[in-house]
Amino acid sequence: MIAQSGGPTAAINATLVGIAERALISPHVDKIYGAICGVKGILSGNIIDIGDELSSPRDMSRLMHTPSAALGSCRLKLPPPQEAAGEYKAIFEAFEQYNIGYFVCIGGNDSMDTVAKLTAYMKENNITGISVMGAPKTIDNDLCGMDHSPGFPSAARYVATTFSELWCDCRVYDIPAVTIVEVMGRSVGWLAASSALAKVYCDAPSLIYLPEVPFEEGRFLDDIRGELKKGPAVLIAVSEGIRHADGTFVSELNQSGMKDDFGHKYLSGAGKVLENLVRKEIGCKARSLELSLMQRCAAHLTSPIDLDESRMLGATAMDCALRGHSGRVSVLRRTSNSPYRVQFDTVSVERVANLEKPVPREWINDAGNFVTPQMLSYLAPLIAGEDDGRTRHGLPVHFRLF
Amino acid sequence: MIAQSGGPTAAINATLVGIAERALISPHVDKIYGAICGVKGILSGNIIDIGDELSSPRDMSRLMHTPSAALGSCRLKLPPPQEAAGEYKAIFEAFEQYNIGYFVCIGGNDSMDTVAKLTAYMKENNITGISVMGAPKTIDNDLCGMDHSPGFPSAARYVATTFSELWCDCRVYDIPAVTIVEVMGRSVGWLAASSALAKVYCDAPSLIYLPEVPFEEGRFLDDIRGELKKGPAVLIAVSEGIRHADGTFVSELNQSGMKDDFGHKYLSGAGKVLENLVRKEIGCKARSLELSLMQRCAAHLTSPIDLDESRMLGATAMDCALRGHSGRVSVLRRTSNSPYRVQFDTVSVERVANLEKPVPREWINDAGNFVTPQMLSYLAPLIAGEDDGRTRHGLPVHFRLF
Repeated sequence: MIAQSGGPTAAINATLVGIAERALISPHVDKIYGAICGVKGILSGNIIDIGDELSSPRDMSRLMHTPSAALGSCRLKLPPPQEAAGEYKAIFEAFEQYNIGYFVCIGGNDSMDTVAKLTAYMKENNITGISVMGAPKTIDNDLCGMDHSPGFPSAARYVATTFSELWCDCRVYDIPAVTIVEVMGRSVGWLAASSALAKVYCDAPSLIYLPEVPFEEGRFLDDIRGELKKGPAVLIAVSEGIRHADGTFVSELNQSGMKDDFGHKYLSGAGKVLENLVRKEIGCKARSLELSLMQRCAAHLTSPIDLDESRMLGATAMDCALRGHSGRVSVLRRTSNSPYRVQFDTVSVERVANLEKPVPREWINDAGNFVTPQMLSYLAPLIAGEDDGRTRHGLPVHFRLF
Repeated sequence: MIAQSGGPTAAINATLVGIAERALISPHVDKIYGAICGVKGILSGNIIDIGDELSSPRDMSRLMHTPSAALGSCRLKLPPPQEAAGEYKAIFEAFEQYNIGYFVCIGGNDSMDTVAKLTAYMKENNITGISVMGAPKTIDNDLCGMDHSPGFPSAARYVATTFSELWCDCRVYDIPAVTIVEVMGRSVGWLAASSALAKVYCDAPSLIYLPEVPFEEGRFLDDIRGELKKGPAVLIAVSEGIRHADGTFVSELNQSGMKDDFGHKYLSGAGKVLENLVRKEIGCKARSLELSLMQRCAAHLTSPIDLDESRMLGATAMDCALRGHSGRVSVLRRTSNSPYRVQFDTVSVERVANLEKPVPREWINDAGNFVTPQMLSYLAPLIAGEDDGRTRHGLPVHFRLF
């Protein structure tokens, strides 16, 4: 049985394909089930047989390039067994009913918590004969135990490409204008940092602000005043989760205290808050925009490397399950940067669940308003594709007349 | 001399290439100048010789695929000659100084006003020896005198592709959720209407609201309640300029009365207003997002037909100028829909300047919440490209498991 969980990515279905491909050629598997909307589907009996669909190579190829979770998703946080014994019982009854030998859950650090809890419950209750595995994904790139999170490279390519195009748009007018682009990233700044890749071929973004460095309005405004001296157009990347030294989110100025099902504060509008700040304090034209859902579902602009790696991570998790292991997560390690080489492996789910990998402080410049060359050399291979006249290293090549 | 003016598109540089290509092979042209930031550049002497850059076929190809105005742009509205005799004098002095025989301005209906005013001024003052021509562009598709506006097909392809991908993202959760996507279009709904192309391959958008039909909050909420009975996810397209029967913009609820340099009301936030309305009146999860600048600069997702047509419209305008005509705009007519065929021609600038082509009421359904099949058959050929396994008729083909 396969489930997908948490926020979707453009590569999460590639991992589903990888699991299915490995399962299809195993003599130990005769049915492949999908739980619709993650654990919710297991609990409600919304389970479908997907073996037929997955036997068409043409459809598998289409599924690889279909964004978001083809099996649906949920943000259900499984309570500890002592608080929800009934739910755990129901899950393992469903596994028994469908004769499940292998359960692979594709998800982020919250979803790996589910894998960890099921694993602990099995140990506690001496449940055997079923392997429970995790396969990673998240656009946030905050998963521990691996070089990068599958799904992130595609989102990074979307972000960098979009910044490159936005810069073409922003620089056409000769009046001072500040454009602030809010990029997803509640606690970590990896995705906003990937906007820096655009700067390899163009002059933007000028400034990048990440949650890893305390945000100061005064310095932000000074940074912008400095950039406006160089030219009229200033393009800025900010993570949705930028916060002050006291831990309050910049977006909180604008928001109620709503929280999501995992207890995370509901964020949006850091860009909008800063747009208003710039207009008030600097007085020039200012606008903000959010890359919103597009950054996680722009399948037409995936990183080919990401799709291949995501598929392999699915296959690795399934293969590990077939070898009788349980409570593990597939991971990848970068063994070489140039040429880019990776190794696939698995680690105990405890090394991934509920942990978070922030951007190292030394990959952010001293001023806290851009990233360092180390960050760029880490990011660049993840989005590289075949070069043609129009793209180089996975990014569009634009032509400038002035 | 070439100038670009108004809001950028992903195809406006293709028109620049078309003008330059026609000029390069003419014995009557020995220099090609670009006015930086439109008429502003002519007035301030910010004029560059671009003949050299445009002589590299490789760079020309890159320029074709570079979004936004490579010569910069402006939103300067030229006052009538009686109010600004000095400016008109300065423009024609600049033409004389640079020995300009042909001036082609690429722009929308506001920019065509500039062409019309310069033409009238020349007639009034017996100025001869210079051809002033317009080449059209706008993502809004509101230009009169032509089948469609160059730049629109690329924006339409971006919008339809994005809706198709957003639907993959929106449908993964099993809780009721309304997602409202705000699409550019201050007075006309063509671009929001193009979201309907996504529905050829997926179930979304469910509802589309355009400025051409008076907006009623009550009917909007009833429409959503109806859709929520069919399934939990509802994806909706709205034009930024939707308005009530009394002419007030839906976004005005949220906005100050700011106007841009052309006297148009500054709009944003129709989606945000409606998101709050849905949350308050229906009580389900609601979110809004704006396609913002991305819809006009996503060059990585242009319509190949659009780029070819935009180039040809540039060449047509230049060719007309070379034949000694003035005060005209290049246009294209659709002579056949299947197979798609067009004809290039020119019309008097008076037939384009300051006019606006709304969506015909009969291309919108009776309920005013979607478009008719006529609209789809008009739109479909504009975004069609080469089919491969992943795209069909210019749109991504996604695979569904449930």
